[in-house]
Amino acid sequence: MDELQQLLARLRQFVAERDWQQFHDPKNLTMLLASEAGELLAEYRWVRNDQADAASREEARRARILSEIGDVGIALLLLCERIGADPVATMHAKLEVNRTRYPAEMVRGKSERPVLK
Amino acid sequence: MDELQQLLARLRQFVAERDWQQFHDPKNLTMLLASEAGELLAEYRWVRNDQADAASREEARRARILSEIGDVGIALLLLCERIGADPVATMHAKLEVNRTRYPAEMVRGKSERPVLK
Amino acid sequence: MDELQQLLARLRQFVAERDWQQFHDPKNLTMLLASEAGELLAEYRWVRNDQADAASREEARRARILSEIGDVGIALLLLCERIGADPVATMHAKLEVNRTRYPAEMVRGKSERPVLK
Amino acid sequence: MDELQQLLARLRQFVAERDWQQFHDPKNLTMLLASEAGELLAEYRWVRNDQADAASREEARRARILSEIGDVGIALLLLCERIGADPVATMHAKLEVNRTRYPAEMVRGKSERPVLK
Repeated sequence: MDELQQLLARLRQFVAERDWQQFHDPKNLTMLLASEAGELLAEYRWVRNDQADAASREEARRARILSEIGDVGIALLLLCERIGADPVATMHAKLEVNRTRYPAEMVRGKSERPVLK
Repeated sequence: MDELQQLLARLRQFVAERDWQQFHDPKNLTMLLASEAGELLAEYRWVRNDQADAASREEARRARILSEIGDVGIALLLLCERIGADPVATMHAKLEVNRTRYPAEMVRGKSERPVLK
Repeated sequence: MDELQQLLARLRQFVAERDWQQFHDPKNLTMLLASEAGELLAEYRWVRNDQADAASREEARRARILSEIGDVGIALLLLCERIGADPVATMHAKLEVNRTRYPAEMVRGKSERPVLK
Repeated sequence: MDELQQLLARLRQFVAERDWQQFHDPKNLTMLLASEAGELLAEYRWVRNDQADAASREEARRARILSEIGDVGIALLLLCERIGADPVATMHAKLEVNRTRYPAEMVRGKSERPVLK
């Protein structure tokens, strides 16, 4: 069993021990995910682009960022579990779509590429 | 090399071939993540809680949901890559924090549990 | 001067007294707005649809909801100020677009109406 | 009747004509708001801070930004209507809280001010 499978097993146990499945319908889980993404956003809202890498290495801020990344990731895994989606396969499939949608020779080095959908 | 490691390798190649690292500072990636989380939210905004599981199985909607889950997951992995965080270890660490913060016997079956932070 | 104009004047003074214009470029303000929207979302994430009106009347929760609505509104006004947009005229213009885009006779009573854009 | 009151009246009529009150409980409206905030975020995610003001003046982008600001504002007004909150009074009250919480002499010119809550 690889690391991600172990994490998923522990996550299922965490939710079951607390009897929280009843609150974890897919609608509520997207709200959890988006609110956690909002907290991650808050860590960078006053940081300039050219200082964002350095800010990510400041000790106290980094701890908060990792904590929010953990929350976002957990929310995403809970949603995948609930709707029966394999998280890595789902990302892999989307990456393939993006490879076709944004051919390297057309979008190379352009920020005004077509909006990632 | 496990599946997630393969995905990360392909993702790095995808970004490098397009010379997009220049746009992918951590600030911009949190904006990407939150905007994709918003698109996922949009799939459920008019769906009632008690219909959210069924809605997640409708063919056309499911395809859109999986596409958005893929985008959110990719954005999260790109951010982890950029700041040098291991995604699974980061989630695992946060799950441990949550296990301590929300003892099963205190929060079992309660929706009004302390807000997940 | 109407109430909204008074609020805008006080808001400009609030920002100027703190010398915060330097942080309030439009990019950062959209991050502020989205992170505050995430906090508002958090107030309802475990509340079922059919209990959401009642939950909005609970005293402590209502205070938090109003506080978050205030933050979202302030962020939106700051953004309008920064880019020189009239908030009410901008909403009015979008409502006219929506009136045309969603003719009453086509969308009446349907949740599966075309996604509000 | 001032401009904002006129807008609110038109908005009530827009919703009533479409029989959409049934979908507009406060939970769903926070999801609408956050998803529209995500679309606004998307307009700036690849724009550098020091180019964000100029980008806001580009004709095609400006039209999209105003469209998204309109959507966010409409969602906020719909939520205020639904829960019986006066939007301008709510923002005014929060501004007063912020004036006390962030005394000008303590936070002047600092981006690392206490996080706006």
